Amino acid sequence: MFEQLSLIDHHCHGVVRRDLSLTALESHLTEAAVGSFASRIGLAVRRWCAPVLDLPAHAPAEDYVDRRTALGFDEVNARFLGAAGLHALCVDTGYTPEPILSPAELGALAGGPAYEIVRLEEVAESLHGAVTAGGFPDAFRSLLDTRCTAAVGVKSIAAYRVGLGLAAERPADTEVVTAAAHWLAGPARLADPVLQRFLIWCGADLGLPVQFHVGLGDADVDMRSCDPLLLTGLIRNLRVPVMLLHNYPFHREAGYLAQVFDNVYVDVGLATHNLGDRATVLVEETLELAPFTKLLFSSDAFGLPEFYHLSAVLFRRGLASVLGSGVSEGSWTAADADRLAELVAVENATRAYGL
Amino acid sequence: MFEQLSLIDHHCHGVVRRDLSLTALESHLTEAAVGSFASRIGLAVRRWCAPVLDLPAHAPAEDYVDRRTALGFDEVNARFLGAAGLHALCVDTGYTPEPILSPAELGALAGGPAYEIVRLEEVAESLHGAVTAGGFPDAFRSLLDTRCTAAVGVKSIAAYRVGLGLAAERPADTEVVTAAAHWLAGPARLADPVLQRFLIWCGADLGLPVQFHVGLGDADVDMRSCDPLLLTGLIRNLRVPVMLLHNYPFHREAGYLAQVFDNVYVDVGLATHNLGDRATVLVEETLELAPFTKLLFSSDAFGLPEFYHLSAVLFRRGLASVLGSGVSEGSWTAADADRLAELVAVENATRAYGL
Amino acid sequence: MFEQLSLIDHHCHGVVRRDLSLTALESHLTEAAVGSFASRIGLAVRRWCAPVLDLPAHAPAEDYVDRRTALGFDEVNARFLGAAGLHALCVDTGYTPEPILSPAELGALAGGPAYEIVRLEEVAESLHGAVTAGGFPDAFRSLLDTRCTAAVGVKSIAAYRVGLGLAAERPADTEVVTAAAHWLAGPARLADPVLQRFLIWCGADLGLPVQFHVGLGDADVDMRSCDPLLLTGLIRNLRVPVMLLHNYPFHREAGYLAQVFDNVYVDVGLATHNLGDRATVLVEETLELAPFTKLLFSSDAFGLPEFYHLSAVLFRRGLASVLGSGVSEGSWTAADADRLAELVAVENATRAYGL
Repeated sequence: MFEQLSLIDHHCHGVVRRDLSLTALESHLTEAAVGSFASRIGLAVRRWCAPVLDLPAHAPAEDYVDRRTALGFDEVNARFLGAAGLHALCVDTGYTPEPILSPAELGALAGGPAYEIVRLEEVAESLHGAVTAGGFPDAFRSLLDTRCTAAVGVKSIAAYRVGLGLAAERPADTEVVTAAAHWLAGPARLADPVLQRFLIWCGADLGLPVQFHVGLGDADVDMRSCDPLLLTGLIRNLRVPVMLLHNYPFHREAGYLAQVFDNVYVDVGLATHNLGDRATVLVEETLELAPFTKLLFSSDAFGLPEFYHLSAVLFRRGLASVLGSGVSEGSWTAADADRLAELVAVENATRAYGL
Repeated sequence: MFEQLSLIDHHCHGVVRRDLSLTALESHLTEAAVGSFASRIGLAVRRWCAPVLDLPAHAPAEDYVDRRTALGFDEVNARFLGAAGLHALCVDTGYTPEPILSPAELGALAGGPAYEIVRLEEVAESLHGAVTAGGFPDAFRSLLDTRCTAAVGVKSIAAYRVGLGLAAERPADTEVVTAAAHWLAGPARLADPVLQRFLIWCGADLGLPVQFHVGLGDADVDMRSCDPLLLTGLIRNLRVPVMLLHNYPFHREAGYLAQVFDNVYVDVGLATHNLGDRATVLVEETLELAPFTKLLFSSDAFGLPEFYHLSAVLFRRGLASVLGSGVSEGSWTAADADRLAELVAVENATRAYGL
Repeated sequence: MFEQLSLIDHHCHGVVRRDLSLTALESHLTEAAVGSFASRIGLAVRRWCAPVLDLPAHAPAEDYVDRRTALGFDEVNARFLGAAGLHALCVDTGYTPEPILSPAELGALAGGPAYEIVRLEEVAESLHGAVTAGGFPDAFRSLLDTRCTAAVGVKSIAAYRVGLGLAAERPADTEVVTAAAHWLAGPARLADPVLQRFLIWCGADLGLPVQFHVGLGDADVDMRSCDPLLLTGLIRNLRVPVMLLHNYPFHREAGYLAQVFDNVYVDVGLATHNLGDRATVLVEETLELAPFTKLLFSSDAFGLPEFYHLSAVLFRRGLASVLGSGVSEGSWTAADADRLAELVAVENATRAYGL
């Protein structure tokens, strides 16, 4: 009933411009070097992605890599972006460890518009070595304004740098200058709670939704400090949409925040494809408290184009399971289900980002 | 098999004495101003409450409000309290932001006895401006004793004021006097960890069960400090029943406490109607570790009479699903299921409160 | 399809050498004195254990105890160990509050080899009163080396003593001596974060896997400090397998660690039999992120031989449910399922411990 639902992917990244060996593919699937294909994510790739490359479902990993190489990365990227069924994309452009596709290229392959999400830390770090501490606040505000001319939102990776236990108040410029002096005397990597808050408030001052990395990440993250409840104070003060990304295993906590705060939206990106066919449970649990007006789709795809397709398929299945079983059990009508699906698939993102 | 199970609602509140507009109804359904009817709670109202007002299940929200108004609040209150199928009620009388029904009125509509639960903070705050710091400990003990003459339990909202990370020991009167001096010099709202502990111990000294708000609440709560595990030390020292209310999303943690401490009881009130038809999962997860001798029913209904009915229906369904599927899968016998249902529905509350 | 799967129980204990009254049996089932047989664990004993003693499934608890006594503990131990279907056992020998079966005796009854896991704290405490603070580091290293000659791993109960919030770095011997001086001046029970870390590093220096108690425990534990995420820093530094035991209700967090760190393995022992027939959900949730190459079976059986059998039955059912439903829903092939089952049942433990 919802197999063809077109989705807005409100948080994603570029994909690589090269062919991948089995080892390289595995290292993109999961952080650890072993077990990728003996995990739900790897099993889901074999099930859902192999057919897109003309292989039978469940083809062995070795055959999958061979076929991928035979087609070449351009074709592989095109097939998965095309198969994803996306209405539009919001691309975080702040992480480029190697050459990856631009938003425009992603949008062309996906067949829909690609908007930009500006990563706050990347903008700030571009000023390292180029400003004085005293000049940093104005320089950042000015640069962010310029960089966001065509952007629809900003992204904070405070979770990765200092954790989400941020003070609720906007820092004064004097505090920012003091913190900047300390930062500018060291390496460019920004990891300072005062500066991180300053960046967030600057994004909010532009009236843009602020995306936060929450919960699930890689081995560099301290997951204890990625609980979305840590953001409660800041959420109370910010007047723009706050987009809580990923959230697993704190997705119920995120659902609570989406229920009680008008400006909070949630997704289950990254976790969706990591959980493979089990993603349905994730959607069910998130929608316990999160209103259907507050859940969005994202893939958080990075590197592998498979993730665009896989997340979209799995999220659609999860949403269809929730909505369809609700109809069959009498929890709501089929017309209700259609309406709720539209909200989640397209309307919530359109409204929150003003697309 | 359990559709007719009569329940003791061991934690609930009064309902309002006025008709409600759509906006007012929505603001009672969820804290945030948007999305109430596009949430599980709103969808559950349309499914389960509309028929009680002679509307078809799933009637639109606008029709629902019109019908509510046409019937008038007296009739609406009577219908939902009557439909709830309650054996008895334990009413928290400490929160009255507007005129609401008294325990006696609620009991009359529900067709069962209504006992009082005295809110500790409300009693203490009634002494603000009327006592000296040095006189506070005795004055509170005396007033609480009087106020609890006919009460069956007390309630602490420490979670809302200072969080549940309370020290395990009874505070000395000298500490209490010092804290009271500070409190009496400011506004009446009590939010002091020493005083909050003192209140709890005074309730326990009367031999009364102590209810604690835990987990799920509104936008004012700091959910991080509402984890029931924070109460572990205090639980070890208190010699009266400790009633952990709500608990979601920490209901598994609450279940653990109910398993390992003889004096701990749990419920899933408030969460039950917030999760709508998904409440069954909540009951299942809570009963992973919580013995059937330790789970109670509560609605935590406040304001809307719908919540009395809705919680009772959803809790009964959840319990019936757990017990019934256990029978069909061979986990226990039908006779076991009947016995376990009686414990949860009536006997546990009767025993814990000495009703 | 997996009913006959032979399992390695990688974390278990001895069982008692005496007959048990109903009260004694109940006190072994759950920590609290009431509700044991009205809990999932007690209901599971009646279902799955009664037939092993020639009683019908669901026989009343009183009949069960009578039959147990009539058979005598030797026969009861033999039946349950034999029924468990174990390939091998790894027995933690560090907890002996009363005379219990040795690893060799357990292995003989189970029909497989029994390896030893040495409890770090027990080894250290045996030195209390027998060494000076200055001599403690070398004395412990030497004694641990000797005690581990035939052992396949070590076990830390830091969770019970100081919590899992341990610093990530190896403590210097000078720090250890200072901490030891403090400890040696008091009772033998070791509860010091520096010493506890020292013990862990000494185990790792022997190249042995380190087991950690995580999550679910009895009433003595502070569950807030048993979150496996607290071990993240230490996990990054240790170069040996880190075995996260129990984990509930933090099993999803444990699954994340198993996914992103090559050296992390997880189980759901103790929780498996505590959750009874609900254990299937526990296995499902753990395997959301944990690769099939990282999940192990353990019973954490202590005292009652029933737990060996019950855990094995429930874990097999849970794994069979995950793998079997995956086949029937098309998530993977039957050949995949067979391969994944072998990994979890035997191969992961064989590889991690070098059996």
